[in-house]
Amino acid sequence: MTKTGKKVIGVLGGCGPYAGLQLVKNIFDETLAGTDQEHIPVYLSSISPDITDRTQFLVKKDVDNPAYAIAGLIRQLEKAGADVVSIACNTSHAAAIYDVIEKELQQMSSRVKLLHIVDETVRYLKENYPYVDTVGILCSNGTYKTRLYESRLRDEGFTVVRPPETFQHNYIHQCVYDEIFGIKAQSAPVTSQAQECISKALSYFAKHQAGAVILGCTEFSLAIDKPFLKGMHIVDSVKVLARALIRDTYPEKLRKLPEAAIMVPAEDRFYQ
Amino acid sequence: MTKTGKKVIGVLGGCGPYAGLQLVKNIFDETLAGTDQEHIPVYLSSISPDITDRTQFLVKKDVDNPAYAIAGLIRQLEKAGADVVSIACNTSHAAAIYDVIEKELQQMSSRVKLLHIVDETVRYLKENYPYVDTVGILCSNGTYKTRLYESRLRDEGFTVVRPPETFQHNYIHQCVYDEIFGIKAQSAPVTSQAQECISKALSYFAKHQAGAVILGCTEFSLAIDKPFLKGMHIVDSVKVLARALIRDTYPEKLRKLPEAAIMVPAEDRFYQ
Repeated sequence: MTKTGKKVIGVLGGCGPYAGLQLVKNIFDETLAGTDQEHIPVYLSSISPDITDRTQFLVKKDVDNPAYAIAGLIRQLEKAGADVVSIACNTSHAAAIYDVIEKELQQMSSRVKLLHIVDETVRYLKENYPYVDTVGILCSNGTYKTRLYESRLRDEGFTVVRPPETFQHNYIHQCVYDEIFGIKAQSAPVTSQAQECISKALSYFAKHQAGAVILGCTEFSLAIDKPFLKGMHIVDSVKVLARALIRDTYPEKLRKLPEAAIMVPAEDRFYQ
Repeated sequence: MTKTGKKVIGVLGGCGPYAGLQLVKNIFDETLAGTDQEHIPVYLSSISPDITDRTQFLVKKDVDNPAYAIAGLIRQLEKAGADVVSIACNTSHAAAIYDVIEKELQQMSSRVKLLHIVDETVRYLKENYPYVDTVGILCSNGTYKTRLYESRLRDEGFTVVRPPETFQHNYIHQCVYDEIFGIKAQSAPVTSQAQECISKALSYFAKHQAGAVILGCTEFSLAIDKPFLKGMHIVDSVKVLARALIRDTYPEKLRKLPEAAIMVPAEDRFYQ
């Protein structure tokens, strides 16, 4: 709460810095507000140097678990007044990190509500596209290997299109991480090579009957802004998380989804 | 300082929400960092509902001075660990607001360093373009009427091109505030009408011998991303402020200005 009694959203950013900004921007974009004063109170914590690399911890284990720093920073957001918090980073939601964050917060007697990006994305899928049963995921190798989205989706009865490891690496992971054409290296504008990788990946998911594709890595949102492509719904996990944070604080301020985000074009009905 | 002893930049956002984001984005953009961990620690406070409208206070005086809320929020950033703070809003730097913020902070025994957007912009102009003596300002009517940049520039010996009131309103203020084509209403992309207004304003400044134009309202940065136009240097006050915040915390991480930002094309030498 602010000193004037208003609910506050806390965003744990810094992993990376731009992902934190993107979650905050999505919160503003998805809020019904005609004036500055109608916007929702937000704190952003972006203390990047203190948070070790998430993928490096998961894959090589040669750095400390970033969970300890993240939990401490979430506690700080709570002390500043945040009522609901989310971590603007898909990889930090892997069990090896997230479970430790939750345990640390419990030990600090934290009472903050923490929203989970994967839980919220799966919930969004089921609520808005109940006819979709097969899903593709655009994500980094870390999320692919830990099956972050995949396990949860399978638990909920979805069929998940899992591309072979070489395809995942060459056309999906590298689309973000390639040092020359990757989105982390060049995002304004995204390179034509990265766009081609995305196109190839989407075609792969469409060919395998996916009805929706989850953008499970922040960088993909910078390259894809259409709600429907190649017969599939595009579900941006950052936007979903922003909407969940608004729903949990000021539901009356949540912008309605545009028609295009939920309609299914006639020629694509066979995906239902 | 963070708990691990690192300096922290505090950004007082929320007036408006996107201006806060833009200052933080500029801090990240202007930082030399190859990894997430090399980025600078930043806290953003965006408590929009508590901060009354700045222009409304200056022009109509029918709302409380936003200075009290802003000072309280700056103090909160300081308590969270911010060493240097700036307000991501040009209008809040008008004396009627800014002087009260400073006085309030003194009364709260604050020791935070507060950087002033106008001071930093004038300093930047003098350091980088010592040959420029005539300046134009793209700003809202509030900044125009309070002569926020103008007085300071004149004190420092600059000649300021002040357009007549109707021109200022029709082509500069409305470029941001028009409810249909203004940048506040449509910014992605900026409308062709707003672009035409900017072009007209720039031509006016060029015709009156300006060697530089200050973007003195956050919205103009969304429409203009060139460092040199119509023979004039374009000085984005938000980018200047971001660079000043880096200079005051981690000067070794400050990105060098690109050549294009400081060079003067040959055909424009007569402006020197």
